[in-house]
Amino acid sequence: MKKETFVTKEKLDEIIQQVPTPFHLYDEAGIRKNAQAMKEAFAWNKGFREYFAVKANPNPFLIDILKEYDCGCDCSSMTELMLAKAMGCAGERTMFSSNDTPPEEFQYAYDIDAIVNFDDITHIQCFEETVGTFPKTMSCRYNPGGLFKISNDIMDNPGDAKYGMTTEQLFESFRILKSKGVENFGIHAFLASNTVTNEYYPMLAKVLFEVAVKLQKETGAKIKFINLSGGVGIPYRPEQEPNDIRVIGEGVHKVYDEVLTAAGMGDVAIYTELGRFMMGPYGCLVTKAIHEKNTHKRYIGVDACAVNLMRPAMYGAYHHITVMGKENKPCDHMYDVTGSLCENNDKFAIDRMLPEIDMGDVLVIHDTGAHGFAMGYNYNGKLKSAEVLLKEDGSFSVIRRAETAADYFATLNDFPIYKKIIEG
Amino acid sequence: MKKETFVTKEKLDEIIQQVPTPFHLYDEAGIRKNAQAMKEAFAWNKGFREYFAVKANPNPFLIDILKEYDCGCDCSSMTELMLAKAMGCAGERTMFSSNDTPPEEFQYAYDIDAIVNFDDITHIQCFEETVGTFPKTMSCRYNPGGLFKISNDIMDNPGDAKYGMTTEQLFESFRILKSKGVENFGIHAFLASNTVTNEYYPMLAKVLFEVAVKLQKETGAKIKFINLSGGVGIPYRPEQEPNDIRVIGEGVHKVYDEVLTAAGMGDVAIYTELGRFMMGPYGCLVTKAIHEKNTHKRYIGVDACAVNLMRPAMYGAYHHITVMGKENKPCDHMYDVTGSLCENNDKFAIDRMLPEIDMGDVLVIHDTGAHGFAMGYNYNGKLKSAEVLLKEDGSFSVIRRAETAADYFATLNDFPIYKKIIEG
Repeated sequence: MKKETFVTKEKLDEIIQQVPTPFHLYDEAGIRKNAQAMKEAFAWNKGFREYFAVKANPNPFLIDILKEYDCGCDCSSMTELMLAKAMGCAGERTMFSSNDTPPEEFQYAYDIDAIVNFDDITHIQCFEETVGTFPKTMSCRYNPGGLFKISNDIMDNPGDAKYGMTTEQLFESFRILKSKGVENFGIHAFLASNTVTNEYYPMLAKVLFEVAVKLQKETGAKIKFINLSGGVGIPYRPEQEPNDIRVIGEGVHKVYDEVLTAAGMGDVAIYTELGRFMMGPYGCLVTKAIHEKNTHKRYIGVDACAVNLMRPAMYGAYHHITVMGKENKPCDHMYDVTGSLCENNDKFAIDRMLPEIDMGDVLVIHDTGAHGFAMGYNYNGKLKSAEVLLKEDGSFSVIRRAETAADYFATLNDFPIYKKIIEG
Repeated sequence: MKKETFVTKEKLDEIIQQVPTPFHLYDEAGIRKNAQAMKEAFAWNKGFREYFAVKANPNPFLIDILKEYDCGCDCSSMTELMLAKAMGCAGERTMFSSNDTPPEEFQYAYDIDAIVNFDDITHIQCFEETVGTFPKTMSCRYNPGGLFKISNDIMDNPGDAKYGMTTEQLFESFRILKSKGVENFGIHAFLASNTVTNEYYPMLAKVLFEVAVKLQKETGAKIKFINLSGGVGIPYRPEQEPNDIRVIGEGVHKVYDEVLTAAGMGDVAIYTELGRFMMGPYGCLVTKAIHEKNTHKRYIGVDACAVNLMRPAMYGAYHHITVMGKENKPCDHMYDVTGSLCENNDKFAIDRMLPEIDMGDVLVIHDTGAHGFAMGYNYNGKLKSAEVLLKEDGSFSVIRRAETAADYFATLNDFPIYKKIIEG
């Protein structure tokens, strides 16, 4: 499938007049269309809710859009919980799916009435010792181990993953929690990251639905929801076929009827915790070509770097690149597209065929809406960029300002050197 | 070689009473001893100077210690230049070795009289267009390509690296710069990262010295210094033999006499830009075991995560771990030591044999003094830790405070949501 930008060259030039490159740009229209499709795909399920994985993109303006489609927040840390609360998502609209959880985060999650999803059986005791009681609704994370084998470069096989409980532990946890007064239960599993197959969710659902039936029968625990978590991916490469969320929803529906409805459990809600699928394609990194270098290879240096988008450096991940205004020119030049870090893996593309690039050309690096800005670091003392929202009506607004030197040095502000640095 | 911690259990317990884990701890005595050895190893060279690679650890209190041993700052970005200036390193004590350099950083480097090291021949024009003139002293970065083959998992072969100029470009750059009025020249090359062999610097020096002789002869440019850059590594693994800086200094001295002195160039200064070697072993990440998990594998969850130390996640890098107070117990338990990120590569160790770990045990993760804190990110909304200096006299002080939620959300402070988040 041809990968196209969601913004025109003219609009982008207009934005760049006001916001210096690099920056992440988000597509309100795309976010809405996809969120609506997501909602419709699971409309057959009465209690359905998507809990957006805040870690993928913790920008409140984007989460606000998703809220209009009834999305909640899937949080993994204290600050994400704080953000969810400030956004009015406290209570059952916040899922706390963490692992190796600091006890104080259990306390905070309890305080804001979030649904807590235990990663491990030992967390029951930790929670009890910390909080002193249990809420009425709790969830447990399941890891069936070698029983379910989907893998890619990023996610190990479930048996090698640090997440979740074994089957025995899951049953035992439900028994313990029930004995502690918990009334409603959820089951969660995350077995593969960024799958581009419509089969993943239905396959996972079948595993979880079957275990849910057994769990309810054997432990008497009332299953309120099943959380399919994340894992529905996006096509980063042009040759990849995108997932069809309608087909995925139908696939889950079929298994739901076969397993849950058949077992008299047709009132179980389906939850999801998608991040990449909800936001990935609807963000891009906008950057300018500032240097061309011809040595042992041919390089285009841009004004963004791994600080703005780490996935290529960390995972060798592919991100498609469009040279604005040259969409129809032949891709007859082979370039490495590099950032400025003193780190040789700071390359957005290696041996990529692109149209001939001139200095000042604007490059759009696709699919940075999830795990893009969010994974930013400050290596080499580089500053994180602004985030800009391209609205449905064609206007745009800055939804996060760029970092300044004062932000970067903030944790030295107890010392005289801070003032000296900032005042130059 | 047995890897030992630079801090005793008693001292560490005392520090933890006041500074909550996790934090990075630095060893003033070790930094000083090593900096002194470095200085002595190159004392034979009149103009010698180590420019500490600020990117490895941009903490001003640590750089202050190095300054006592005549070290300067090797900077790669605007904020690093700002820090160097505030620390009194402006002028020839600051080297600006960047790549894909934003023009405004050339301007700032010029304004503070830093020595600018051009990564590419095209930067000459960029510099001239930006600054309008050239300083008296300038440097160029050399990449001999396939001529010099040392590699490891992190650094590609020189020919594949984005850094530096070809031989032809180096000569051409010197000619151009000379014609523009530049009087003193430096040559720089970085060909391999974290080498643990005493041979690397002398081998690299030979390449650079020989090219320097040719350059001076053929272009008439006066070579003032040769910058061996970084690449002298540290033994992360117990079975690795540490570099002997005295032997390395002697090795460079021998080649210096053979090539430079023999060519009548015995006044050339040697510069280095070490980061890892100057700081790596003199920092550690102090963390506490907070969860034990037995599923398909055995996990110890600690209160640090990849936010505090990314090298294992990004490079699969080995960092030795000591369980404090159990140094002499048998390493008869196999653990994955994990952080709390929702990222399966957030593991400080995989299948590591360690003594049996109890909850609350303090783990020291070795060799985090370079590219540890500095590579920290905020993925999952996790906050960066404090940094603590263990002083020579046995006292300690916090040399950087831990991040707060207010720091994390600072780039949203133009919006009402910021106040809402922070005030809860």
